[in-house]
Amino acid sequence: MATVTGPLMGDAKNTTATALQGALVDLIDLSLVAKQLHWNVIGTNFRSVHLQLDEVVTLARTYTDTIAERLSALGVNADGRSATVSKSTKLTQPESGWIESGKVVATMTDILGGISARMRERMDLTEKSDQATQDIIISVIQDIEKQHWMFQAMS
Amino acid sequence: MATVTGPLMGDAKNTTATALQGALVDLIDLSLVAKQLHWNVIGTNFRSVHLQLDEVVTLARTYTDTIAERLSALGVNADGRSATVSKSTKLTQPESGWIESGKVVATMTDILGGISARMRERMDLTEKSDQATQDIIISVIQDIEKQHWMFQAMS
Amino acid sequence: MATVTGPLMGDAKNTTATALQGALVDLIDLSLVAKQLHWNVIGTNFRSVHLQLDEVVTLARTYTDTIAERLSALGVNADGRSATVSKSTKLTQPESGWIESGKVVATMTDILGGISARMRERMDLTEKSDQATQDIIISVIQDIEKQHWMFQAMS
Amino acid sequence: MATVTGPLMGDAKNTTATALQGALVDLIDLSLVAKQLHWNVIGTNFRSVHLQLDEVVTLARTYTDTIAERLSALGVNADGRSATVSKSTKLTQPESGWIESGKVVATMTDILGGISARMRERMDLTEKSDQATQDIIISVIQDIEKQHWMFQAMS
Amino acid sequence: MATVTGPLMGDAKNTTATALQGALVDLIDLSLVAKQLHWNVIGTNFRSVHLQLDEVVTLARTYTDTIAERLSALGVNADGRSATVSKSTKLTQPESGWIESGKVVATMTDILGGISARMRERMDLTEKSDQATQDIIISVIQDIEKQHWMFQAMS
Amino acid sequence: MATVTGPLMGDAKNTTATALQGALVDLIDLSLVAKQLHWNVIGTNFRSVHLQLDEVVTLARTYTDTIAERLSALGVNADGRSATVSKSTKLTQPESGWIESGKVVATMTDILGGISARMRERMDLTEKSDQATQDIIISVIQDIEKQHWMFQAMS
Amino acid sequence: MATVTGPLMGDAKNTTATALQGALVDLIDLSLVAKQLHWNVIGTNFRSVHLQLDEVVTLARTYTDTIAERLSALGVNADGRSATVSKSTKLTQPESGWIESGKVVATMTDILGGISARMRERMDLTEKSDQATQDIIISVIQDIEKQHWMFQAMS
Amino acid sequence: MATVTGPLMGDAKNTTATALQGALVDLIDLSLVAKQLHWNVIGTNFRSVHLQLDEVVTLARTYTDTIAERLSALGVNADGRSATVSKSTKLTQPESGWIESGKVVATMTDILGGISARMRERMDLTEKSDQATQDIIISVIQDIEKQHWMFQAMS
Amino acid sequence: MATVTGPLMGDAKNTTATALQGALVDLIDLSLVAKQLHWNVIGTNFRSVHLQLDEVVTLARTYTDTIAERLSALGVNADGRSATVSKSTKLTQPESGWIESGKVVATMTDILGGISARMRERMDLTEKSDQATQDIIISVIQDIEKQHWMFQAMS
Amino acid sequence: MATVTGPLMGDAKNTTATALQGALVDLIDLSLVAKQLHWNVIGTNFRSVHLQLDEVVTLARTYTDTIAERLSALGVNADGRSATVSKSTKLTQPESGWIESGKVVATMTDILGGISARMRERMDLTEKSDQATQDIIISVIQDIEKQHWMFQAMS
Amino acid sequence: MATVTGPLMGDAKNTTATALQGALVDLIDLSLVAKQLHWNVIGTNFRSVHLQLDEVVTLARTYTDTIAERLSALGVNADGRSATVSKSTKLTQPESGWIESGKVVATMTDILGGISARMRERMDLTEKSDQATQDIIISVIQDIEKQHWMFQAMS
Amino acid sequence: MATVTGPLMGDAKNTTATALQGALVDLIDLSLVAKQLHWNVIGTNFRSVHLQLDEVVTLARTYTDTIAERLSALGVNADGRSATVSKSTKLTQPESGWIESGKVVATMTDILGGISARMRERMDLTEKSDQATQDIIISVIQDIEKQHWMFQAMS
Repeated sequence: MATVTGPLMGDAKNTTATALQGALVDLIDLSLVAKQLHWNVIGTNFRSVHLQLDEVVTLARTYTDTIAERLSALGVNADGRSATVSKSTKLTQPESGWIESGKVVATMTDILGGISARMRERMDLTEKSDQATQDIIISVIQDIEKQHWMFQAMS
Repeated sequence: MATVTGPLMGDAKNTTATALQGALVDLIDLSLVAKQLHWNVIGTNFRSVHLQLDEVVTLARTYTDTIAERLSALGVNADGRSATVSKSTKLTQPESGWIESGKVVATMTDILGGISARMRERMDLTEKSDQATQDIIISVIQDIEKQHWMFQAMS
Repeated sequence: MATVTGPLMGDAKNTTATALQGALVDLIDLSLVAKQLHWNVIGTNFRSVHLQLDEVVTLARTYTDTIAERLSALGVNADGRSATVSKSTKLTQPESGWIESGKVVATMTDILGGISARMRERMDLTEKSDQATQDIIISVIQDIEKQHWMFQAMS
Repeated sequence: MATVTGPLMGDAKNTTATALQGALVDLIDLSLVAKQLHWNVIGTNFRSVHLQLDEVVTLARTYTDTIAERLSALGVNADGRSATVSKSTKLTQPESGWIESGKVVATMTDILGGISARMRERMDLTEKSDQATQDIIISVIQDIEKQHWMFQAMS
Repeated sequence: MATVTGPLMGDAKNTTATALQGALVDLIDLSLVAKQLHWNVIGTNFRSVHLQLDEVVTLARTYTDTIAERLSALGVNADGRSATVSKSTKLTQPESGWIESGKVVATMTDILGGISARMRERMDLTEKSDQATQDIIISVIQDIEKQHWMFQAMS
Repeated sequence: MATVTGPLMGDAKNTTATALQGALVDLIDLSLVAKQLHWNVIGTNFRSVHLQLDEVVTLARTYTDTIAERLSALGVNADGRSATVSKSTKLTQPESGWIESGKVVATMTDILGGISARMRERMDLTEKSDQATQDIIISVIQDIEKQHWMFQAMS
Repeated sequence: MATVTGPLMGDAKNTTATALQGALVDLIDLSLVAKQLHWNVIGTNFRSVHLQLDEVVTLARTYTDTIAERLSALGVNADGRSATVSKSTKLTQPESGWIESGKVVATMTDILGGISARMRERMDLTEKSDQATQDIIISVIQDIEKQHWMFQAMS
Repeated sequence: MATVTGPLMGDAKNTTATALQGALVDLIDLSLVAKQLHWNVIGTNFRSVHLQLDEVVTLARTYTDTIAERLSALGVNADGRSATVSKSTKLTQPESGWIESGKVVATMTDILGGISARMRERMDLTEKSDQATQDIIISVIQDIEKQHWMFQAMS
Repeated sequence: MATVTGPLMGDAKNTTATALQGALVDLIDLSLVAKQLHWNVIGTNFRSVHLQLDEVVTLARTYTDTIAERLSALGVNADGRSATVSKSTKLTQPESGWIESGKVVATMTDILGGISARMRERMDLTEKSDQATQDIIISVIQDIEKQHWMFQAMS
Repeated sequence: MATVTGPLMGDAKNTTATALQGALVDLIDLSLVAKQLHWNVIGTNFRSVHLQLDEVVTLARTYTDTIAERLSALGVNADGRSATVSKSTKLTQPESGWIESGKVVATMTDILGGISARMRERMDLTEKSDQATQDIIISVIQDIEKQHWMFQAMS
Repeated sequence: MATVTGPLMGDAKNTTATALQGALVDLIDLSLVAKQLHWNVIGTNFRSVHLQLDEVVTLARTYTDTIAERLSALGVNADGRSATVSKSTKLTQPESGWIESGKVVATMTDILGGISARMRERMDLTEKSDQATQDIIISVIQDIEKQHWMFQAMS
Repeated sequence: MATVTGPLMGDAKNTTATALQGALVDLIDLSLVAKQLHWNVIGTNFRSVHLQLDEVVTLARTYTDTIAERLSALGVNADGRSATVSKSTKLTQPESGWIESGKVVATMTDILGGISARMRERMDLTEKSDQATQDIIISVIQDIEKQHWMFQAMS
């Protein structure tokens, strides 16, 4: 059976893999939460928030794939199964039912701020362990913080 | 606050909503499982299975949106949060780690067969309750059963 | 001179033709009303409503053509002239002049709800008379009810 | 409530608005009549006339939007409702039922000739009142007269 | 060796498979006949008929694939070999040599009318046996009957 | 060294060049101001205003190039340097810092109204001096006044 | 009635026409056989073979049209009817039912080798009779022999 | 036999037709001369001049069609035959053989300057006779004078 | 000054150059004649002939460039000036004024037949002198003879 | 009123904001200067320099937006107003009037070299304060230094 | 003669240039080796490996250009001549002749692993000498290691 | 293990294979040399030569693939490894370092002339051995000689 080995060993590999797996869960759940809000938002601001959320879904899905395939490239297995995501997510979960657009914006601001903070920790950790991974985390930070501004500006 | 009312009432609404929510969970988890396998498949057949799985992800995501927005159109709230998916999914979950391509194909065959069967029940239930919903379920069945054939053919 | 004959005869043909002609008038006038509001809407929500209305125009025009050409395929003449539309439309007509966006949203909600109800009657009538026509009506219902939700959510 | 004011005042505004509203009705009804003929034309020349008519529909719809939004830019309300169009249209209305392609061509030649003449009056009136509006009318004339030639050439 | 099983059993499977195989032969031969006429049509109406026939070829080829892959999804083997098509086709075969465009239009009208009738029988048979298949047959009917109208209108 | 001569002489050249240089400064500064507001707007209406402003930027940049290259075609040098723009701009400058969306809309309404007025003076001046230039000014007016309406409608 | 005359006479015309009609039958049946295998192939190599076969279908259909229209350009009637193809095809016909991918590859290798040989005879025959036809045959040979290599490489 | 009548009569028609026919010859010959130079230019500046000339060809061909179809729309016959162009062209003809790029640039500067002057006369003549034609001439002037600047700048 | 030398010398060069220059004149004048007819055709068949002629213009222009640049590649100067074309063209010139579509078709049939014959002579001459040139001539023949068939079929 | 807070505090925020605001002014003025030269360059090398300058404009505008929106994401206000740019720009300003292409190339070389140097200082400063910002600065450096080489190579 | 100077001096320049030249040779030879295998691979897995190899070719060519132009931007000359590549390449060269797909996969795994290791050394070296270069090396690493995983997974 | 056999035997196969392998080396090295010059060219003509060289790279790469896959189709192994190219190339190698554009043009003229001559020998050799191969060589000649002219014209 095929074996997949990557360029890192020992601590460098473990640190990097932990950072990536954490980022993976953040991003998969971000895509699920943003879709949940995309479907359930109401209010006069409906259209703007509905569309803005789909931009978040698109970026979350794109980075999810990049992050998971970076894990594969390190010879580590990504875990993006629903049980894993559900158990380990750090995102505040939205309540069920219709949610007024102001509350959606506040929820997203909070979630994006949290992801930004965790991604910055991962950026610091991977600087030593794997700069090729850190560079991906930095791109995630740029796009997450841009969305963070936009949701704040919208509030 | 805005209220959203749809064209159905009483049993018709409940039956249809239950069918759609069940389909939603099936499809969200299908997209997560297919991505999980897309990242972790190994074997000489890697490339074919890896790419075929991404076609499943694409169709699962597209129908997820259609199904959830059909719920909204009925004035019912879709629930696609990770905890909901994780708790209520009926899909056999793949183990963690690398999975040999033959096993991936068998897993997908099994999962797609199960979704086909559940979607056919929903097709029967919604025929009475809402033909506009049934028509969407029928499209899902066509594409799921096409993938079911392809994974069987690949085994 | 060419004669055009279709697959249906007698009652089946008459029932189907009546349903289609009714749908045609609904959809042509929907395209005219949505454009009227697109040009005359005002309010802070202007841009969202202005753009959402153009999506309605696009779908109304697309189905108008499909419906009218289905009539031709049955050997029945579509009638989409302005006098016919004006006389037989069931859509509440917007007043002339600038209309505040909240009122536009309410007007559209009302109009789309009415079309949904009439299309559902046509769906029931054509189930017996011509399933190939019913299938088109069902597609119209899916898209009209999706817009109905969006305008409600925006209110 | 928002108020929309444009660059013109008094007579200049009135003259221009009257010209534009007249053009609007001409163009909306042109799109309806051309579609009516598109669906009901028969004869060996069916395909050519059917397709040529859709080019007319496309140009009529494009200029309809330009003209109506020019009215908005002048702070005047466009009126494109079906009753308005039906009451004030100057276009000869086609009879209902199948129409032989030669007759369709003759009808369109007549209609396009009439629109050309009325648009030229509007071109003369708006030269003084608003050259920015006149420039739009001139574009309409160029395209209408090109279609006028083509339908004549086809007869 | 791989085995392909579908969602249907017994009579439902047999009825559906028979309907699909019949549709497959109709559509493959439609693509061959329409190409034959596309190459051999003459007359002043040459260009219109030549191009209209290629639209028929395109739709015939598209549905051929959909129909055959639906058979695969049911675990039944499509048979689209030339000998099978030639033996079992129900389409009137055009004579060899140049064919005047009026005769081409008459031939196509006849062929499309026949396919419409047979597809409607298949629509009725599959309503019970497999609605997911019936939905495909209904789409075929919509497009075939639209072409049937156009060829009649052209005569 | 190359010399560039254009079709105009004397007063016609001077008048036209002055009009074009004035238009150039208006449009460059419009692109800078609209970007400034695009980055600094806040409020629930953020997304609509943010996107609408980018449409203004796009049109301002497009006409900037057309206007400057018209100057070159007349053998006159365009001056679009920052010092020139800053010194000669007639646009009310937005304050620094975050600006609430209502105030952004009011600022843009004011700016676009001013440009419309100045462009209309240039339209009148160039009618005599160079109709080929006037025609470009007229296009600018059409698009500026359309934006003027939209920002008013949004207020 | 229109007559179509081409540039060739006598033997040159006959030789060329015979070569082209033979090529036409080869290519139409190639498109039918490749589709048959596309639908019925099974095995772990399913996806690769399934997709490779569709590339063959595309090239066969493209050259079919070129070849048949070359016949028309010579004033000779192409014959691509199913009975003609079925009777005169030289392609080994695949059995009905599922076919293991290795056998599909062997079948295609055999068929493509046969077509290559027959096309080379036609290349030699048309060198004298019509180089404009020969040039088309040469293009067919290039693409058929490329596929021949690929199916051999896959075996 | 069809007759084509346009919106103009008497002097207005004659004046406009003469202007358009003159413009037609200018533009057809411009496309021929620019291609001639495109093929025969040499010098270190070859690539820039070769490509710039093809931009001139593209614009000349586009306006040629617009101008000729404007004649048709007026019910007047365009004459773009080679003998007509050759006899009535006012463009300095390039010598045969290779032409050094500096000379090509000088030739084009001269030709474009001449066309600009003649088009401006036509702009003045058609202002009275037909503003819809004048508007086309004005567009030609804008593009010709832009090229005139570019060739001067290149010298 | 740059000199351009090609791969051929002596007779081979002269023969090839003569063939190419003859082809160039044929193709430039074909583009001019086809445009002339495109603008002046009338009759019920107007649209088909008008569009078919533009396909001829497109192919004539494309090959014109290929042929002229082949001359350049041989170090020989192409001559495509209007006087050269007018003097040396062998194409029957259409009369001025409106031309009935049947006559247009007959004219084009005649012209295309003539070009086919002359191109075949050039094909024979260049076989010895330069096969790289002959290959281009063969492509021209294929497309010209395809158009020749289509115009004959249309008569 | 909305408040926008970013991930940085204190010195890190100030240092990063200062670097970004400096970069913003550099890039806005680069887009203005490059356009100024694009319009006013003359010389035989006109076309190459004119087009190369537009590539600089495109990259300057793209990074301007990225840089300004990074400021917003940090909760700091970008200032891109003309007075700010004019006062704080460090770019050597081109003189007014036509500029010979050699001088344009020298000016651009000088300007790009200066921007490269200042961006490298910002790269060093932001390495500590914000790596997500530094990564953007690095991309700017890559593209600016590539242009720097090209303008040097052209001199 | 033009001189090209970059932003680096002394050791920083030398270190960076050496790293880039090494990367250049790695990537050019990777493109040649991957093409060699693309043409000569055989085995049932032919199609997957053949296509995967072309993705490697595409990425190798893209980074080759980026790397070489980075050298130019530093004022250093890239050397990508065949003799240089052949002499200095560190890639294991494939034997000539057909190569079984398993062996191709093993060869590519080995080669990609080697490039990954050497690029990581260059990443470390350029961190000090030039971060703008290091950032490019990091992108190369990301893509090379992704391919490294895929070829391992395929084995 | 798979064996690949082609349509040729004995001398025909050997002659054709030798011609193709020679062409392969010419084209691979052409792509490497043209890139080398693309990166190292300097002079006022930099941009034109830099871009023209990339057109050569594109054509060289395209034909490289066609030629190598033609070898595969003949059952012969292409050899495009760097050592093979370096040893057997007949192209004059450019010196290292910056090269003035005039020298680049001279070098390319020389190289393209040489390839033209060798390709013409291959054209003659393959005429007997394999016309399907000769036809590819002829296409290469057409494009190489076109570039040969352009580089001469630029000198």
